[in-house]
Parts: sequence; C-alpha cells; structure tokens
Amino acid sequence: MKRYLSPSISTLVAITILCAAPAWGASAPVARAYREAHGPRILREYAELLSIPNVASDTVNIRRNAEFLRDQLSRRGISAELWELPDAPPIVYGALDVPGAERTLGIYVHYDGQPVDTSQWTNPPWSPTLYTAAIESGGMARELPADGEPIDPEWRIYARGSGDDKAPLPALFTALDALAEAGIEPTSNLRLLFEGEEEAGSDHLQEYLESHRDQLDVDLWLICDGPVHQSRRPQLVFGVRGYTGIEITVYGAGRYLHSGHYGNWAPNPAMRLARLLASMKDASGEVLVEGFYDSTAPVGVDELEAMATLPDYDGELRRELGLAETEAANAALAERLLIPSLNVHGMASAAVGEAARNIIPTEATASIDIRLAKGNDPAEMLDLVEAHVREQGYHIVREAPDRATRLEHPLITRIVRRTGYPAARTAVGMPIVQPIVEAARRASPDPVVLVPTMGGSLPLYLFTEVLDRPIVIVPIANHDDNQHAPDENLRIANLWYGIDLMGELLTLP
Amino acid sequence: MKRYLSPSISTLVAITILCAAPAWGASAPVARAYREAHGPRILREYAELLSIPNVASDTVNIRRNAEFLRDQLSRRGISAELWELPDAPPIVYGALDVPGAERTLGIYVHYDGQPVDTSQWTNPPWSPTLYTAAIESGGMARELPADGEPIDPEWRIYARGSGDDKAPLPALFTALDALAEAGIEPTSNLRLLFEGEEEAGSDHLQEYLESHRDQLDVDLWLICDGPVHQSRRPQLVFGVRGYTGIEITVYGAGRYLHSGHYGNWAPNPAMRLARLLASMKDASGEVLVEGFYDSTAPVGVDELEAMATLPDYDGELRRELGLAETEAANAALAERLLIPSLNVHGMASAAVGEAARNIIPTEATASIDIRLAKGNDPAEMLDLVEAHVREQGYHIVREAPDRATRLEHPLITRIVRRTGYPAARTAVGMPIVQPIVEAARRASPDPVVLVPTMGGSLPLYLFTEVLDRPIVIVPIANHDDNQHAPDENLRIANLWYGIDLMGELLTLP
Repeated sequence: MKRYLSPSISTLVAITILCAAPAWGASAPVARAYREAHGPRILREYAELLSIPNVASDTVNIRRNAEFLRDQLSRRGISAELWELPDAPPIVYGALDVPGAERTLGIYVHYDGQPVDTSQWTNPPWSPTLYTAAIESGGMARELPADGEPIDPEWRIYARGSGDDKAPLPALFTALDALAEAGIEPTSNLRLLFEGEEEAGSDHLQEYLESHRDQLDVDLWLICDGPVHQSRRPQLVFGVRGYTGIEITVYGAGRYLHSGHYGNWAPNPAMRLARLLASMKDASGEVLVEGFYDSTAPVGVDELEAMATLPDYDGELRRELGLAETEAANAALAERLLIPSLNVHGMASAAVGEAARNIIPTEATASIDIRLAKGNDPAEMLDLVEAHVREQGYHIVREAPDRATRLEHPLITRIVRRTGYPAARTAVGMPIVQPIVEAARRASPDPVVLVPTMGGSLPLYLFTEVLDRPIVIVPIANHDDNQHAPDENLRIANLWYGIDLMGELLTLP
Repeated sequence: MKRYLSPSISTLVAITILCAAPAWGASAPVARAYREAHGPRILREYAELLSIPNVASDTVNIRRNAEFLRDQLSRRGISAELWELPDAPPIVYGALDVPGAERTLGIYVHYDGQPVDTSQWTNPPWSPTLYTAAIESGGMARELPADGEPIDPEWRIYARGSGDDKAPLPALFTALDALAEAGIEPTSNLRLLFEGEEEAGSDHLQEYLESHRDQLDVDLWLICDGPVHQSRRPQLVFGVRGYTGIEITVYGAGRYLHSGHYGNWAPNPAMRLARLLASMKDASGEVLVEGFYDSTAPVGVDELEAMATLPDYDGELRRELGLAETEAANAALAERLLIPSLNVHGMASAAVGEAARNIIPTEATASIDIRLAKGNDPAEMLDLVEAHVREQGYHIVREAPDRATRLEHPLITRIVRRTGYPAARTAVGMPIVQPIVEAARRASPDPVVLVPTMGGSLPLYLFTEVLDRPIVIVPIANHDDNQHAPDENLRIANLWYGIDLMGELLTLP
C-alpha cells in the first residue's frame, strides 16, 4: 500500500504544542478557554479518579470507581444510574435529552484497567504522579500544579488507567463544565455507557446491552478508547481487531528430574514447547497454521484510500523501540493489522537466573493471543490452531493429564481456549460519521488520521452486531502511554486535545 | 549395547527388604546389629542434622552444619577441624590413623543442598518429617519412633539434603559407633572431607584441595554422593559427567508493547527464543550444534562389560515417570549418559496463566545446562553452542544491549556462560577398586551394579586430575529421593544399606 513520507516526529510534536487550534467550531474555543483557565483543578480532579484502584476483579474498588463516576455525572445534570449484574462490575449509565435535538450520540468509555505488577512500577500504580516528561526521557516527578500555575503540555500523569481508559472521562466532564459555564446546550442527546470490565474480557457487556437495549437507541456510538496515532496526530478509527487466545501446556515426566541423571533421556517440555511454537510461525512473521489467513475479509475502497493517507511513522517507531527490523521484512504496521496475528505474550517453564535449578522441568506453558481481522471467527481460528498442534503429533487434553493418558501418548498438550469475539468495522464512507471527522479536524490543527482498523481489540461487535449501530473510535491517549504495562501515563497535551474534541462533539452542527 | 531382562522392580524391592545380608564380612553384622538395636536414635540424630538449613549461600546456617559435623567427628575420636577460605563454606576435615594400617581411604561427602522453593514443599524443607511411604504413594506423616519401636524400612524421612547429600553422614557415624561398641578397629587410615558448597558449584574446592594436599594423601577416594540404581540395587560408579551451561536471553522491543496495536509487526522474543532452542535439538533428542559430539572419548572394554550387566530398568522408569517415550526412540538411559547433553532447565518470558497480559514481551530467557562426557572441554562446548547461535543470525552480547546495538542488529542474544568442569572416570578394572566392589557385594544381597559413568556431575576431576588419585562413587540414597526438587527424601532401607556398607568399608580385608 502507498505510504507518504511524513515530517519527522519532532516537527509534528512542535506543531501540536505550538499551534493554537483555529476558532472554527462553536465550542472548541469555549472548551479550550475553560481548560486554560482551570488546568490545575482539572488535573487534581483527574488524579482523584486515578487514585481509585480499578482492576475489574477488585470488586470493592471497582464499585468505588462506578459510584464516583455516577456522582460526577449527576452533579453535571446528567441522569445517571448504575446497572448491576451478579459478579460483574457495574455499568455507569448516563442520559441527557436535549430539547429539539435530532441526533443521539452514544459515548462509551471503560473505567477498569489492566492488572498490575506493582514491583515493576516506578510509583505505586494508584498513586497518580505528575512528571515533567516521560520517565524514560528524563522526566522528573513534581507536585500537581497550584491554581494559576502554568502547565507544560509535555507533562505526563502516571497511574494505571491514566491512558487506558479513564482519559476520556475528564475530557467529557470538562467539556460539559465548559458548556455549562458558557450557557451552551449540547446539540445532541447523549447516552453515556462506562464499562468496568473491559480489560477482564467484557464478559457481561452483551447481557448489559441486551437487557437495556431501549436505553441505548443511539444513531452512532463514539467509542472513546485506545491511543492516537504514533505520529501524535489525532486519529479516528473505524474498526477493531477481534480477539481470542489459548494457553498451551506441554508435559515431560510426572515429577522434576535431575538434569544430570536423566538429561538426554527424559523428554524436555521446554524444548518441546519451543519446537511447537517454532512450528506455528516462521522467522519472517508468517503464521504457518494452515488456513489461518483464509477467512479474512477483503478491504474496501474507502478503507484503502484512508490507509493511503496514513503517515509513514514505522521507521521512527522502530528507532524509538530499538528495533533494527520488524516482522515480514519491515512490512507496514497498518498492513499487518489487516491480517490475524498470533502472539506469544508469555512463556514459562521452571525457573531461570538465580532461581534456576539443575532439573528437567515437568511442564512448559505458553500464553498466546490471537487478534482477529474482519471475517475471522474466534472459535474457528482456535480450531485451526488445534488442528496444527495435532498435526505436530500432539494429543490435546483439557485438564492436566493423568498417568494413563501420559503413558498412552508421547506428546500431550493441555490447551485452554479463551473466549473471544470477532472484529468489527464501520464503513469509512458512511454519512453519519462525516460530522465526527469534521469535529476532530476542528479540534486539532494537525491532519486527522483515518484508520480503517486499529490493532487493539474491543468487543465492538456488540455495538455493530448486537445493537446494530455504527461505531467510530475516538482515541485521546498518547501512543506511548505504556497501556497494559507498568508506568502507564497520559500526556497532558493529549488530555487537552480530548477536552477540545469533546467540546466539538457535544456541539456538532 | 546388550542389556539383560531384569526381574520386576517389585520383586527386587521385596528381595531388598526381606533378605538379611549373609554374614560374609567382619563388621557388616556388627553394623547391622547395631542399627537394628538403635534405629530410633539413629533417625532422631539424623533429623537433628537435617534440621539445620544447608544452602551454601546461607553463611550462618552452613557454618552451623560444619560445626555440628566437626563435633560429631570429635566425639567419635576422629581428629577433626574446619578449613576456611573467605566467602566460602568451611570444609569439615577429619583424620584417623590406625596403627598398622597400610591403606588410606578418603571419604568425601557434601553437606550443602540445593536451594528450595518452600511454597512447593509439603512440609518446610528443614523440618524433617517421617512418612510411612513416599508421599506420592499415599505415605502418611508420623512421629519419629520411640526407642524400641520397630521401623519399617519403607519409611522415608523428608528434608532438603536428606538424600543429596547428608545421607552418608549418619551411615558413617553409625558404622563408627558400631565398631567402637564392638571394640573393632577400622582396617584403613581415614581422611574425611565434607564439602559445603557442592550444589553451589564447588567454586573453592580446588583451592581447598591444593592448599591441604599433604593432608589428603589417600590411596582411593570414596565419593559418597548420588542415588543407587533405579532398580533399587546398590551401585558403584566409576565416573561422572562434567558440567557447564549458559543462560540465553533474546530481545524484542525496548519496552512492553500492546499485543493488539503491535502484534504481527514487532518481533516477539518468546517466539525467537522458541526458534533458537528448536534449532539446537531435534525431536528425537539429537543435539544439532555442529561438533557437539566430536570430542567425546570412546568407552573401554571393562566399561562396556560393566554396562552389559546393568539391569534394564528403563521401561519401569518410563512407567513410573508417566512417559510414553523417551528421547532417541527409547535409547537406553545408560547409553545416553555416555554422550554430552543439552537440557533446558528453565524458560521465562513475561507471564502465563492469570498473570498473563496482552503484551509483546521485551525479552525471553532460557537457562540451559550442558552435561559433559569424558573428553569434552567445558569452554570448547560453550564455544560450539555460541557458534551455532551466531549461525542462526544472532549477534552475541554479554550485557543487556544498548539502543545503538539494538538498532544495528536485528537478532541479539545475551549469553551468560557458566563456569564448568570436565568429566572424570576411573577404570573399572583397576586393582585398588576391587575390594570396594567386594565390600558392596557383602553389604547387600542384591547384585551390585557397576556403572562406568553416572549422569550427575561432580567436580571429581579435582580428585582424579588435581590430586591424581582414583575415585569410586559410593551412592546410598534411593533413586526416587526428589534430589534437587521439592520433597527431597531418604528411604530408610537405603540408610540401613549405607550403614551396613560403611561397616564393610571401614573393615576392608
């Protein structure tokens, strides 16, 4: 696919920071003026939200988040409530009907975050800490600014959930405050849906949506999640990859064996796992599972056109990440997202380093995630992987094998299938999405990147298939926000963009 | 190699338990009578020794072990002392000169044990606990027996070090006590050498031996370590494999990446490691590193004869371990020990199971041990592995790579080379070892297995090359003692055999 040569990232950043957005829209200046006047308070209020731990399985704290958000909506005149299901984080729902409005916008955000390994964080994950720049670029921790103190948009606030995905919440709340202060009404009815278990797999979202279908009759869902483009340009995204995965465990002897007395004789499960994984994907990045790419839907004309406008940021990204080469001979990232992926996100067998012992491990496990392109069925993709594993000579079990099974089959693997969901995509050329594109263009002086499919997964098929409504993904966070990783952060310039964008979206012509 | 069909293991066990050893020797009946009369006290005293934590790096407790052992020797009339080097566990040295004795026997034992992961132990590793049978066979914990209470030889005592390698110590002490009570003098001078850092690599043993060479002038070293044959028959072993190893780390991007946004594009280090490991060894167990087998010395005629007498226990062992097949199409274990091995004893990349996150790992590590056959030089073997890694396209570094290195080389691996030592072997036909063989035959009604090389590694080249004396390895512990693993144990029948054997060895004709 054709790609343009983009200006260097430092140029782009400079533009983002230095250029004030021109006053095209009715309310972007209102939102911007408001956040310029109240920046320190906005950061303090965001830090308050970020200080509430937000792992979905932490039932007490996840509810504290939900109640906090419900109260934030209520105090802004939004009719707000919590939806409840047993053993599920609540949904925070808000509705605002505007007299005379002919359009209803849905706004989706998730308030839960990924689990944390606190030992790997510079600061505790729920002790929001402001830095003068990214930590890895030499940023220093500093106090939150006092009222009236200037704010450098290159500052970053560090906390789990700061980028993924609490960031749209202060953007929305601030835009509502700005409009209220200026006496301006939103131009659309609003239906707000804040989910609390997206990072845990959104297991209850379908049930929530189906049982509240009448409260969710919108014209378009704005899905506020994910990062902006790696070039720091704003982007709108029209689809997501689906998601599934498996955990594969292979076995050796039934107990640890001394590697001297039995090494070379007893099978080594770590080595078996290595051979099995190596059989699944070649050095160029091509997945070798038969049929893996066959069900992927072709890409439409509007999508190809949008892709042709994507900045070519891959080279810069490689340098930033310290990668001499990427998969498939440096094929474009955007192209790689149009096909399903197979990624080992974890691997374990006994111990390494100081903890290593002279044993033959009893088992070895790999945790694999599979990202799906439009057209791929989650269960069918797992079936293909299992067929591949069987073709390597493995007998597949669902629980740890008993002795009889071990003695019957030389190669045994336990495969745990994850639940999954398909990809979703809205056509880039659809009329209802055009005002959204224009709003994003007004909110930022930089060209807006239109992306047919983003790499991340969200269960947006629930919106596009179950609720049967189009979606547009409206990202706010910086691309280098360490989402899903230690030291997650939000760059303040991205929060400012989010506020200005929300101002535009609430006042679409 | 020719192998005989052996009686079933249950038959062998029955013989071991039921047959009293015939009264061939001068002192085996003395030692046996003594341990039959004082069994409960012997177990209590062994439990006392086992209750002292014995990881070499635990300087306080390793010294407590050494002092305890020195006192045990002194109280038995052995001239005992501790040898010291900075930052090294002490050597416990004992000497006994017997008027008129024309032979000096060296007896080596190591009193340190492998590090533990306490969470995987049924009982704390240094709270010695007696069981009525192996835990995995339904054994129940029970009190240590009171004086006069009968002792079932199938009982097992669980503790770190119980099998590897404190077991010879109560055997030796009890045999000395038995002789003293009966007024019988040992027939050889004794030089006792108890090491405290064998499991940590014996880094100071050479220095200890070289600086005390004049106190170590023996005719033959009895190396008391390792388990008896898997058939439960006693065995004498004439050599050990050498040992070395590497830790290999391969790299992906410099920070965690979201597997959705970058999966299929950013290289995956877990997958890279899998391919690298898979390139080193094929599914049949053949190491694919060029030249890996070339330096291995041929095996002599006496050794081949000894091997031909080995019981064919492999099938039983496979059943016990739950293995339908072993490497190299079920090749004999004894044959597999004659060639160098390459074993992954641990592998890690990010996390699996509940802790897995949707990321692309930044690195993946495998810890590999290489067991050496006679003729293999440790450093040269690592050079061969490194040459293989380079041939797979990798740039080898010794520290974590910096950004410039990452950007220059698509494939980077950090290799940490372990220190190692060569194999050692004494000729099976050597005259000085024949009385030892006869002593073992007297101590047990079962045929004694003569093994040219055992699978485990010990730095016995220090005895055969540095001290230039022959060695015979004299194992006592059961083969299923979980050495190096959680729930290490010693079967009481093996302790009894050890006592009877020590009785014979102290009174060689």
